[in-house]
Amino acid sequence: MSSGVEGDVAKMELGDEQLVTPWNVVANSNTGIDYDKLIVQFGSQKIGTELIDRFEKLTGRKAHHFIRRGIFFSHREFEKILDRYEQKKPFYLYTGRGPSSDALHVGHLIPFIFTKWLQEVFNVPLVIQLTDDEKFLWKDLTVEKTLAMAKENIKDIIACGFDPDKTFIFSDFQFLGQCPEFYRNVARIQRQVTFNQVKGIFGFGGSDCIGKIAFPAIQAAPALSNSFPFIFGEQKDVACLIPCGIDQDPFFRMTRDVAPKLGHPKPCLLHSVFFPALQGIQTKMSASDPNSSIFLTDTDKQIKSKVNKYAFSGGGATVEEHKEKGGNCDVDVSFQYLRFFLEDDDALEKIRKDYTSGELLTGYLKKDLIELLQKMVKTHQTARATVTDEVIAKFTSPRSLKF
Amino acid sequence: MSSGVEGDVAKMELGDEQLVTPWNVVANSNTGIDYDKLIVQFGSQKIGTELIDRFEKLTGRKAHHFIRRGIFFSHREFEKILDRYEQKKPFYLYTGRGPSSDALHVGHLIPFIFTKWLQEVFNVPLVIQLTDDEKFLWKDLTVEKTLAMAKENIKDIIACGFDPDKTFIFSDFQFLGQCPEFYRNVARIQRQVTFNQVKGIFGFGGSDCIGKIAFPAIQAAPALSNSFPFIFGEQKDVACLIPCGIDQDPFFRMTRDVAPKLGHPKPCLLHSVFFPALQGIQTKMSASDPNSSIFLTDTDKQIKSKVNKYAFSGGGATVEEHKEKGGNCDVDVSFQYLRFFLEDDDALEKIRKDYTSGELLTGYLKKDLIELLQKMVKTHQTARATVTDEVIAKFTSPRSLKF
Repeated sequence: MSSGVEGDVAKMELGDEQLVTPWNVVANSNTGIDYDKLIVQFGSQKIGTELIDRFEKLTGRKAHHFIRRGIFFSHREFEKILDRYEQKKPFYLYTGRGPSSDALHVGHLIPFIFTKWLQEVFNVPLVIQLTDDEKFLWKDLTVEKTLAMAKENIKDIIACGFDPDKTFIFSDFQFLGQCPEFYRNVARIQRQVTFNQVKGIFGFGGSDCIGKIAFPAIQAAPALSNSFPFIFGEQKDVACLIPCGIDQDPFFRMTRDVAPKLGHPKPCLLHSVFFPALQGIQTKMSASDPNSSIFLTDTDKQIKSKVNKYAFSGGGATVEEHKEKGGNCDVDVSFQYLRFFLEDDDALEKIRKDYTSGELLTGYLKKDLIELLQKMVKTHQTARATVTDEVIAKFTSPRSLKF
Repeated sequence: MSSGVEGDVAKMELGDEQLVTPWNVVANSNTGIDYDKLIVQFGSQKIGTELIDRFEKLTGRKAHHFIRRGIFFSHREFEKILDRYEQKKPFYLYTGRGPSSDALHVGHLIPFIFTKWLQEVFNVPLVIQLTDDEKFLWKDLTVEKTLAMAKENIKDIIACGFDPDKTFIFSDFQFLGQCPEFYRNVARIQRQVTFNQVKGIFGFGGSDCIGKIAFPAIQAAPALSNSFPFIFGEQKDVACLIPCGIDQDPFFRMTRDVAPKLGHPKPCLLHSVFFPALQGIQTKMSASDPNSSIFLTDTDKQIKSKVNKYAFSGGGATVEEHKEKGGNCDVDVSFQYLRFFLEDDDALEKIRKDYTSGELLTGYLKKDLIELLQKMVKTHQTARATVTDEVIAKFTSPRSLKF
């Protein structure tokens, strides 16, 4: 998996359509991606009130604020997972990440924070794929470098607090050589998909290397339960729920097409929006620009300085103007970050009201965000420091899980 | 690896050129493939007297009759292997087979008989790849079926008498899941080769599945020594010599292009001609036609009956005509089979002379062949009967080899 907002060169010709692929995201307006339009483009469903109500009723849990606030905004057949939950039929969670050499930024935590919460609510096994092979194929990196990056990223993922008895984390360059059944499923998927199909879905062309062309099968395979015989045995009917960024959807549209042909249920999905760069919701996050976001390795001082200096403000140009006209929460990055990370709905709503009215000044809004991010990053750093090689070995060892 | 003479549908447009790919062989004349022309087409070298002399001088061994008789007729940089042998630098042998559901026929033994001899002469390690994944991708077979076929074929290969201390035999569906370094090399190769390149080399098109498009990297990987860390450690400079049918050359042309980019020496090759069907040297062997060749499971009676009934004769239409005009050894399949399997040069030359002159009648020529094949098949069957699961486990276990 790769984060689209750090995308590579566009491979598709773009009309007035916005472009979202796993490797490239291009909005066609300066207000960023139009997510309602993307749902239509992709043919997914909006996560609506009815679905949220049913989820809350079935699980007895309030929906996560990522769902309540439209951060996870789109889905594919999530209702089927709720059916299974109701009928006590088995399913599992699958998410992943394309390891990057840079320390993760706070936005990278979103799928993991959410997946951890889903794991707690549903009490199901979880597999997490690190696509070091994808990074190797797309970037000018050695195999060894991508493996090392995967290991560092795995520490950050473990630090999110996953249950070691229910979670298997793997990198492709390691796991393909540990589990013959995984490669067998990769080959089964590869036989079902033509070059013309991946050309249509991902925009691959004749000058792309054959590794890229074949790769989608490797990201698809974890959605088939018998890819993990040590967890699911030979069972093919364990359904799969994939929480991921919407840019990853092309992989799983393909997977949903192939899975039934191989006797598996179609994987179901929950899609999140992109995480904005400090510079503004319409700008791309740049992995090479340390000022484009808050990283999990940042110090208190760096966090304070970055937010104050770079976080795009939706406030007035002067205090007088701000007090008169109020701030615009929709474009204010500090408010948007609070929308992602401030769990308290009432506190967030008060900030929104006061900032919109002009009562709350940008400096104070940023102060709230700085304190929250400093706490969040410190908590993460503390948790990460406890992730020893032994802990990594436990999470990454192919083994049976409790569920 | 696949035997071209059992080829699939042609994927390339054919002018007046003969077509030889790993999956299809089409001659453009009724005298079969023009091998001299093929050497020019492929850009390989003819195995000439000078090279044979040097081989014999260096090894102190007479060249194998497959070499002396032009059955292994073409090479790529075999002289570099002789250089290494002279300089006592390490190299290894690599050959393989695409497992088929049918029992092997005698022609399938040719690369193995020859490779066993090379192993003895050079005293070097050998790896043998069973491309069950290739058969899965190209044929309408299940993974399980191709795995079972690979196991049966492995028994036949072991029965050829390879040294268990120097030979590692593997099937892709098994080994890819046992050795992370193998997949890492597959990915390294896949990054170096574009769709346009495999389109040019193999004739793949947009409607081919992505598994076929990516497969050549899997047949290329065993030519890189660090694909087998349990044999060669991390060494990248162990050269590789590949004895194979000429139809497999496209895979290794590609490999020779990629290997230096990854810091490996180019693999060297020894190419063999195709083995003729009983029905004639210009006809294709059909795996589904039990009468097209002698199978290693045939009884004495079947061998006798097939040779007498189906082996295309280059003799005269009547005894009188034969005695007057003589027989044509070039098209006589019985003679051609003797050329492959009768080791005694003097005996073969006598048969050739007597048959050409008309002195030796077809019936007697066939009788000689029948006796030889019966003995050869019986010897094979006896050897195969001793190949227990334990013996298979020894050959197929990733382990260090003696050399």
